[in-house]
Order: sequence, then C-alpha cells, then structure tokens
Amino acid sequence: MLIVKKFGGSSVANKERIYNVARRCVEEYKNGNQVVVVLSAMGDTTDDLLDLAATISAKPSKRELDMLMSTGEQISVSLCAMAIQELGVAAISLNAFQVAMHTSRDYGNARLKKIDTERIKAELDAKKIVLVTGFQGINRYDDVTTLGRGGSDTTAVALAAALHADACEIYTDVDGVYTCDPRIVPEAQKLDEITYDDMLDLATLGAQVLHNRSVGMAKKYGVELVVRSSLSDAPGTVVREVLKVEKRMISGVAVDKSPARISLIGLHDAPGIAFRVFNVLAAEGISVDIILQSVGRDGTKDISFTVDRKDLDASIKVLEENLSKLTAERIECEENVAKVSVVGAGMMTNPGVASKMFEALYNEGINIKMISTSEVRITVLVDQDNADAAARAVHNAFVAQD
Amino acid sequence: MLIVKKFGGSSVANKERIYNVARRCVEEYKNGNQVVVVLSAMGDTTDDLLDLAATISAKPSKRELDMLMSTGEQISVSLCAMAIQELGVAAISLNAFQVAMHTSRDYGNARLKKIDTERIKAELDAKKIVLVTGFQGINRYDDVTTLGRGGSDTTAVALAAALHADACEIYTDVDGVYTCDPRIVPEAQKLDEITYDDMLDLATLGAQVLHNRSVGMAKKYGVELVVRSSLSDAPGTVVREVLKVEKRMISGVAVDKSPARISLIGLHDAPGIAFRVFNVLAAEGISVDIILQSVGRDGTKDISFTVDRKDLDASIKVLEENLSKLTAERIECEENVAKVSVVGAGMMTNPGVASKMFEALYNEGINIKMISTSEVRITVLVDQDNADAAARAVHNAFVAQD
Repeated sequence: MLIVKKFGGSSVANKERIYNVARRCVEEYKNGNQVVVVLSAMGDTTDDLLDLAATISAKPSKRELDMLMSTGEQISVSLCAMAIQELGVAAISLNAFQVAMHTSRDYGNARLKKIDTERIKAELDAKKIVLVTGFQGINRYDDVTTLGRGGSDTTAVALAAALHADACEIYTDVDGVYTCDPRIVPEAQKLDEITYDDMLDLATLGAQVLHNRSVGMAKKYGVELVVRSSLSDAPGTVVREVLKVEKRMISGVAVDKSPARISLIGLHDAPGIAFRVFNVLAAEGISVDIILQSVGRDGTKDISFTVDRKDLDASIKVLEENLSKLTAERIECEENVAKVSVVGAGMMTNPGVASKMFEALYNEGINIKMISTSEVRITVLVDQDNADAAARAVHNAFVAQD
Repeated sequence: MLIVKKFGGSSVANKERIYNVARRCVEEYKNGNQVVVVLSAMGDTTDDLLDLAATISAKPSKRELDMLMSTGEQISVSLCAMAIQELGVAAISLNAFQVAMHTSRDYGNARLKKIDTERIKAELDAKKIVLVTGFQGINRYDDVTTLGRGGSDTTAVALAAALHADACEIYTDVDGVYTCDPRIVPEAQKLDEITYDDMLDLATLGAQVLHNRSVGMAKKYGVELVVRSSLSDAPGTVVREVLKVEKRMISGVAVDKSPARISLIGLHDAPGIAFRVFNVLAAEGISVDIILQSVGRDGTKDISFTVDRKDLDASIKVLEENLSKLTAERIECEENVAKVSVVGAGMMTNPGVASKMFEALYNEGINIKMISTSEVRITVLVDQDNADAAARAVHNAFVAQD
C-alpha cells in the first residue's frame, strides 16, 4: 500500500512531537507500506516568519513573502527525515523544487496544477520514507508560491491523487470530524464517515478540521481522506463520496464566530443597486457571505450581509465613500454576531428541519437575526453571546437524538 | 558597471542592519550600476539550526543537514529584498535552485562547478537588484548542498566570475585586511592592497577576514576583490594579482589559536612509518597541519604535528588504538599552543627574515616549540599564553618599521 500522511504544525512543534511523527511513519513502513509524509511548518514558525517580515515592511511583496514562508516547511521535513533516520529507516526530504510541485502563479494563494511524481517514486523504490514540504509550490517563473490557508492538506490530497495512493491520512490534534465542536457542545459525536459534500459545507461554515479547498480537491479526484489524531490510534473519520452505513439526516452543526453584519438602509428600489453595492466591496477584495434583501418603506429597500470581522472597517469606509452613489440613507453594523449552521444532505427530504431548528432556538429564547438556507444546510445569524447555547440547542434537537 | 556585493551574517543580523545593507545596495543602484547581492544567514541562524538538528540526532545525515541549513540564507535574501522594495527600488531574491548554482555532490562541503546566469541577467535587465543566497548550491541529484566555511564569499566570487562583474565587494565588520589582528596588535596597519597569494597564506594561517577557498577561486578567475566594512565608507583592501604600488616585504602576521600539538615518541626509524601515522588520521577525516620529524635515541625517531584542537581527542583515540602498529613508545600532546606566522612574497629575496623573527621572539623571552617555513611564510608554534606577545613582537619587527 502507498500511504500519504499529513501532519500539521502542532504535530511537529518540538523534538518529542517530531519523534512521535517519525515513529508513526516508521511503524507504517515496517508494516510493508510505502510512506509519503507531508508536513507543515513547526508550531509557530509561520507566524514568527510573518512577524519578521512585518518588521521590515508593512506590506511586503507577496513573492518575497512566499520565498520567506516556504523555509518553514523545509525545516520541518529535514528535521523529521533526520529523526526517521535516527530510528533506523532510510528517509529523504524534498521541497517544492525537488518534487516539482507546479502551481498557478498567484503568490500567497496559489493553486496546485501538476505534480511530477518521478523523484518521489524513485525514492520510494529505493525503500525510503519520503517527506514533502506542504503548503508550497513553484510557478511557471520558477518562483516559490504558497497555497494559502489549509495548504498542507491540499498538498497531501494532490500528492495522494498524483501517486494513486491507497490512503490519504490527515493527522490533527482531534481524533476526527465531530457533529459539532466538542468545546462548545460536550455531547458532540465523532462521525465514522462523512460525504465530501457535507464535509465541504461544514468546513465552509466554520468547522476548522479540514480546509474546504482540500476537501474539494479530494472530491474531484476521488481521494478518500481519513481525519485522525496524531496522538492516538483511534480510527478517525473517513471522508468519501458515498457513505457505507445509512446516512444521518444531519452531519453536524458548525459555529462561526468571525462574521460581522452590515445593513444598508433606505436604498432606492431600482435595478442595479445590489450590483453596485457588492461591486464596490469586491473592488476592495472584500468577500461577502450571507446576503438578505428586504422591502423597506416608501419604495426603498434594505440590504444586509455579513463580512469577516477583520474586513468590517474597510467595508464601512468604502461604503461610506460611496453612500450617495449607492442611494443609501445610512449604514448600520453589528460586530458581535455568529453563524450557527446545520449541515446534512438528508435535509433535502425532510421538510421539517427548518421549523425544528427554529423551535429549538425559540425554546432557548435565542433571537434569530438573519436566516439563509440551501438544500443541504440552514444557517442562522445570532448574537455572539448566544452562539454556544444556540449550537447546543440545535445539536441536541437533531444529532443527539438521531 | 555590474557589481557583486557580499554581506556576512552579522551585517544582516537584525532589521536595522538589513536596512543598512538595503540602503548601500540602493545607493549603488542609483549611481547607475547593476547590483547583485550575496547574503549569508542572519546572525546566529546557522548555529540555531545546527542546535535544532543536534536535538534530533547526534550525527544527522549531511544531506538533510544541508536541506535544513540552506533555509537560513533564503530568509535573509527575502527579507532584504522586501527592505529594498520598501526603499522604492525593484528587487528579487533567488535561491540556489532558481539561479541555478551547480555544485559537486559533497554535502556540507560542496564545490561550485557551474553557475547559470540567464535568470540573474534577465532580472538585472528588468532593472532589479538581485539577491542571491550565499553558501548553497544544488548537486547533480537536484539536492541542496552547502559550501562549507566561508561559503558565501565563494558564492560571491563565483558569481562575479560567471557574470563578468566589474567589481566584487566583500563586506565584513572590519574595514579591510590588516597586517595583523588589531585586537591583538594595536599597531596593525590596514593594507591598501594585497596579492592573492599573500591573502591565501594569511587566510590559511589564521586571518579570518576571507576564507582561502574564495581567495583561491578569485585568483583562478582573476576576480579582483575588495574587502571593506559594511558600516563605513572607508575604501577597504583590494586583493589582486599584481600590486599597483611597491610591494612590502611582509604582508602581515597571522595568529591561529586553534591548533593542538601531538608527538609520537620512539618510532622505529624505518620506511613507511610516517605514511602509516598520517594514514590512520586521514582515515578518520582528521587534517594535519605542521609536521616535524626529528631523530630520537637508539635508532628511533619522533614525529610531531598539529591538528585542530577539536580533533585532538579523536586523534589520540585512533593513535592509541594503533600504537603498536605505528611502533610508537608513547604519545605526548599539548593543547594550549598557537601558531604565529609572518607572510609575504617579499621574504623570498630577503634571507634575513627568519633570524629577524627569531630574534624578536627571543627578545620577548618567548620559547619556540616548532618551526615550519616555506618560500612565502615562516610559522612558529608557541605557548598559547605567549601568542599575542609573539604576534606583537614579530609585527613590530617587520611591519611597523616597514
């Protein structure tokens, strides 16, 4: 079997953890498997390098930032190779140049395009454990790129696809995917399996165990993922296309405490107004999430939407500059809000889900500020102070009794 | 003009110094020159990375160690590129893969074989300051190598040769090459110029301003070097083939406090004995410096030599294991010794140099333990406690009155 294993930064944060990773890989190898290991940068290395860059420049060039950041994973893989060798097994570390890991040209947020597998295969044939730097690639100019958030997961999935690996294991500090964050909802249950689509929705809606880009790639190439703990032998959660046992109606409840809500009040009720609003935001690179439009008074309308809280100041600024062009009377905003979502493909065939969710929130006395639904999820916006209680109420209404 | 500038680790040790380097490069650029900058790793980065490796493995693989170490220079060049950009000039950092900097395959001590210049030239043509990682290369396996001690100087000289640069400036924390270490001999004089050969001897004998490999390469390719301070505008010392003003008899006095002396006493006076001695040391990778053989008693002979003090224990161990094979009665050793050398091609035509040197030492009451001479230098081994006094005495006998 050819197995790709990915370990995050906290799994290689110090000597003991590096040896823990090394031992797990050696164990797999000694069971007769070929092992490819993808590593992130050690612990806080990435943040330390960002801090270093910040002392030099308030807005460093993305090309040079990627050149700087990519050193972090190279440190991890070389140290881990040394640890595996110390345990008596041949190992070799490879960076994005050596693999070669071809990406789009976008610095800071590149997309993997093609992975050459010759070198990795040759090293595997030479009976070595192969360690590959996660999160990085090279673009058509032969420059270093990084893949953005969750990049090492994406590297692992792409490698598993390119190598036709038999398994792709994503090691984290939790032992699988839960129906909700166990720190918020103690009754949360670990899932034995989840579909790509449900995992994508959970990831997009705030569950942080896998990044949605890596899940999307796994779905595209049919790479079965296993999410499991680097510190235990628990079997973890399998992410696959079709579940082997009967599907739950609800896969999980996701909580996202990062949004802020903005409302534009008293807009002219004329064509093109919504376009203008989101166009001025897009021009500033600001992503908008839930959007609601409602009828206002006297032929006007209101538009509300959520943005990431870090983009709130920039959003307000650009909207205020364009207030008259947008025909808005005023702007309102609310910083302390949170999204609570239930996710699950089973919802499509269960029309009672929404009302059951609203009832659970009503019983807890929680006010709903916005509602957004799709076929596979229902999201409500609530006060941030109510987020955990809302998640527990919704979780207990669905999952705990499932 | 195309100018290659090399800055060592202490010149880029923190934000202020990185900006100092950036400003010097921008100044040169604004004078209408093309600028290629070679950097070492910041301050103690190399030692920190070595310490990190030591926590994982007592004897890490050299291949993985080079993979680890090479991150240091990549951090320097990317940060310095950001600083130059912050000063308003286009800049780009390139690592050994991007340049490509081809070396022999030896990890930890590779030799530069060929440098591709296309990418650098293209970036220079695009009006950028180009920053290149010193100390590192890639070998025929596409693996990262490092060049060993003084490696960044070698990178700079090799780049200057490959690019046919008009100047190659080596920036250090002193303002040039001195007739002796000014910390030891306050009267030491800065040289305006020195020949490759004399610089080579000074470097080999303990002066640390340039590594002998880089000087050898400069001589081979006729690259004129300027050694100067990164913190002042003083003109520095030019290293070239033929001096422009009249040659001093003596270029300088070098002090090396790193050696230890080993003596093998009572060896059989038979052919092949010396070969055996140095063969067992070579097999352990131990380099031997001054060698003296003297006639002992009763048809025996003694062999004395110096090794680097860090190799002393390993030398004693391997010699003791082979004591009978080497026919030695016993081993003596002395740890606290130092080499003091006078260097200068002018010595060849001045037969009185040796006696003048010995007289100067005699006048100071300094005992000479070993003597070794060549056409261009005289080296004596003295007690380490006497090293500074010996250097001053010899320096004042020759240079100060030159």
